[in-house]
Amino acid sequence: MKQVSETRCFGGRQLRFEHDSEVLNCTTQFSVFLPLRAEKTEVPAVYFLSGLTCTDENFSTKAGAQRVATELGIALIIPDTSPRGDNVADDADGAYDLGLGAGFYVNATEEPWKSNYQMYDYIVKELPELVEAELPVNDKRAIAGHSMGGHGALVIGLRNSDRYTSISAFSPITNPTQCPWGEKAFSAYLGDDREQWKQYDAVEIIKSKGQTLPIRVDQGLADGFLEEQLKPENLKDAISEVNGGGTVHLHDGYDHSYYFISSFIEAQLRFHAKYLTA
Amino acid sequence: MKQVSETRCFGGRQLRFEHDSEVLNCTTQFSVFLPLRAEKTEVPAVYFLSGLTCTDENFSTKAGAQRVATELGIALIIPDTSPRGDNVADDADGAYDLGLGAGFYVNATEEPWKSNYQMYDYIVKELPELVEAELPVNDKRAIAGHSMGGHGALVIGLRNSDRYTSISAFSPITNPTQCPWGEKAFSAYLGDDREQWKQYDAVEIIKSKGQTLPIRVDQGLADGFLEEQLKPENLKDAISEVNGGGTVHLHDGYDHSYYFISSFIEAQLRFHAKYLTA
Repeated sequence: MKQVSETRCFGGRQLRFEHDSEVLNCTTQFSVFLPLRAEKTEVPAVYFLSGLTCTDENFSTKAGAQRVATELGIALIIPDTSPRGDNVADDADGAYDLGLGAGFYVNATEEPWKSNYQMYDYIVKELPELVEAELPVNDKRAIAGHSMGGHGALVIGLRNSDRYTSISAFSPITNPTQCPWGEKAFSAYLGDDREQWKQYDAVEIIKSKGQTLPIRVDQGLADGFLEEQLKPENLKDAISEVNGGGTVHLHDGYDHSYYFISSFIEAQLRFHAKYLTA
Repeated sequence: MKQVSETRCFGGRQLRFEHDSEVLNCTTQFSVFLPLRAEKTEVPAVYFLSGLTCTDENFSTKAGAQRVATELGIALIIPDTSPRGDNVADDADGAYDLGLGAGFYVNATEEPWKSNYQMYDYIVKELPELVEAELPVNDKRAIAGHSMGGHGALVIGLRNSDRYTSISAFSPITNPTQCPWGEKAFSAYLGDDREQWKQYDAVEIIKSKGQTLPIRVDQGLADGFLEEQLKPENLKDAISEVNGGGTVHLHDGYDHSYYFISSFIEAQLRFHAKYLTA
């Protein structure tokens, strides 16, 4: 892997790397924040999965997470939201919610997506293996995300409870098999068999397999996508049904933007720190 | 003036407005953060001037200033960096350092710039008059900025010490008459008479008129523009020469980006709060 940029940030280091991903079959970039503590010892990490249209830079530049991450001694690992490059399939109409910037954190099984769109395996396996081999980051991991990335964090955390300590999400797509964004993406990436979709739906996973990891969700009530796409009440109901350890915090007046994320990232990082440093 | 967006942020309100500027002879936008305290009483304000290529949104989305502004009860007023619109002159080659996004906070005297590029008067007069008439913001003002906007903050604060309590800047162009960015912009906007340029050069202003307002400057030492464009030592020398109240803080490993600004915006806002709320 090749370092493409570095600067100080809140006493730690903000870095960007590029590598040839075997899983994604393309070159991909990711951003990393290493707290000051990582200059002396290996630190635990929060993996943050971003939303539709984002790259690894949106969270890095807009969330203001580095201040608290340095205080808590936690690394931030921020991947891209899809494979990229001239040889990677994209939506024919350039839609923002399919193809580039919209990988939905699944392993695609359909053409033309399946040769690159393997974001689930990339996040669960290839990225942490690389990070833990090359950087002062240990294997204590938490997973978080926003919107499409909140869906990704919930699904990946719920299905891999041995690999993560805790899950959090801002404004997640909680029940993608039941909303337009999810139906469009899953039809394309996974085909018509809706049974196959359920393995990538947080609400379905909780209902069928239960929930062992602690979950924190933050959702703004002035979010324009709330009712049609996000459906936090479906997640709340599923958690209640299985008596899972999860809280959905609703915030009056907040929207879907990074103004919302920046306001509550401190609370989410402190939530993860309890488990990461336990 | 028309409100074009609003969302909660750190318990306060992040707003964007549009208005027809008489001074700029065009429609312009600016962003405002109102702390929670502004729901009960008028609050003082920090005016933040952004750098080359920026709009009012860069500082709003990337600096993470709202957290501290809410705590201190200070509003943030963030204008655009130039006039905008189809009828506004731009550099023929679309250069990033002249024309749109590069107003340099001067009153242009030359064609084709002078009918719109009156950013000095806009910042000193029209914008605060509008803000103080329409929003719960009082006339206690501090001024701050980044790079080209750091130059703007220094010049505007130094020349209007009755209108501001304090000045701060990140990575400012301290001595624009002596660097390529300044020479290019001032030649275009102000013409060939270098004597006219000096009224917009912080180092020249301090040397000729002294300095009464407190100044805080933060500068990263890994900033690629440091030696050729920014020249913090020239400002330091001028401040020393007049025994002015100013400090230039140099930071190892920090670059010219918002990773740097976000790391030290808290220190700059606390610096202004001492004077704004005195």
